Amino acid sequence: MRVSELARESGVSVATIKYYIREGLLPPGELTAPNQADYGERHLDRLRLIRALRDVGGLSIEAIAEVVADLDRGVPAESDSLLGQCDLPRLAGVEEAVGPDGLAAAEREVGVLLEWLGWDVGDDCPARAELARVLAMLREFWDRRLGAEAFLPYAKPVSEIVDFERGVLRHGEMSLGLRPLDPARPEEALRVLMLGSILFGRAMLALRGLAHEDRGRRAAAAGESV
Amino acid sequence: MRVSELARESGVSVATIKYYIREGLLPPGELTAPNQADYGERHLDRLRLIRALRDVGGLSIEAIAEVVADLDRGVPAESDSLLGQCDLPRLAGVEEAVGPDGLAAAEREVGVLLEWLGWDVGDDCPARAELARVLAMLREFWDRRLGAEAFLPYAKPVSEIVDFERGVLRHGEMSLGLRPLDPARPEEALRVLMLGSILFGRAMLALRGLAHEDRGRRAAAAGESV
Repeated sequence: MRVSELARESGVSVATIKYYIREGLLPPGELTAPNQADYGERHLDRLRLIRALRDVGGLSIEAIAEVVADLDRGVPAESDSLLGQCDLPRLAGVEEAVGPDGLAAAEREVGVLLEWLGWDVGDDCPARAELARVLAMLREFWDRRLGAEAFLPYAKPVSEIVDFERGVLRHGEMSLGLRPLDPARPEEALRVLMLGSILFGRAMLALRGLAHEDRGRRAAAAGESV
Repeated sequence: MRVSELARESGVSVATIKYYIREGLLPPGELTAPNQADYGERHLDRLRLIRALRDVGGLSIEAIAEVVADLDRGVPAESDSLLGQCDLPRLAGVEEAVGPDGLAAAEREVGVLLEWLGWDVGDDCPARAELARVLAMLREFWDRRLGAEAFLPYAKPVSEIVDFERGVLRHGEMSLGLRPLDPARPEEALRVLMLGSILFGRAMLALRGLAHEDRGRRAAAAGESV
């Protein structure tokens, strides 16, 4: 397809496409005439990925360049390092608030929790560090006696959610009428994983807020407090 | 207590305490001598709340001033309007990406979902608007055929989580060894609700990431894809 069609299909303007090519985020099209290039499905997948990283992931052009460079080096879309770059914003200001010792203690406790749950999680998994930050902040701002076992009641419901989400990724066509992931299209795989990680995570938080509102209104109607 | 003791107990410096008094965030202490004021538990509760709103909630001084003004007017800590001000950051850039019609369609669908679930949720509940934003973005960036029924599998596990969280708020002493909320201390009630909303929400997201990592590593070890 020509650049105008690529722009229409991807929702990215021709000027921005040319900028991405100059910055090395998008490979140039194949020259079919001195002043005309031809673009294929791979270009479209790449542009859709860049747009999602920018507009949903909130990544800078520099961060997007790192992600696509990893993809070009053949890093699989499912890898922690690649997906971690597009993860939700981390809880900020923790080390300033609790100090390095407070954070290290929380990290050890999260390790014990994971062992207790029997979950196989790498030391450098971003979610492991995030849970430790959350625990450290709960101790600093809520109650010093709080331990990682406070998270145990979340393990079973969260596992149910994750089994559902993995089902969508592997058998999306069946469960939600979506296309399953095609391993030959790494941009699409990463885009779907990133969107799922961020947007379904946000959906889970919003549903939690809605369920709290529902239970709170019912309790208020029944004359209870909280 | 004197201002130096208030600073030590709250973790807020004397200079910052004086700044909060000037800005009207904290009522002045009771004058016991021309140059000496006495502060009580209410001042300590207020400072702990301000610190949590600033360091965990990420609120500006102006936003904190609105929250404490509501408290001073007697708005209950559990109210949507008060808690909504300390809520998680909203998904940004949605209307620019999907347009007002896309957002309105998603809002209608979320309404149908809530009716189907039988959840009693006000029209102005921030979580209702957030779920609509998420649905609109999933349609724009993932698949146009996606409907609000995609969120149905979250309802049961999220309800389990919310029942646990409400139990912590109402019977914290029993379930986690924490103090239960005291209705006579609205600052403390709001602080705990806000911290719970933000930090346990983050914990839920982190645990979801950890469960995905665990299932992914097990599947990889068994030679499956994704």
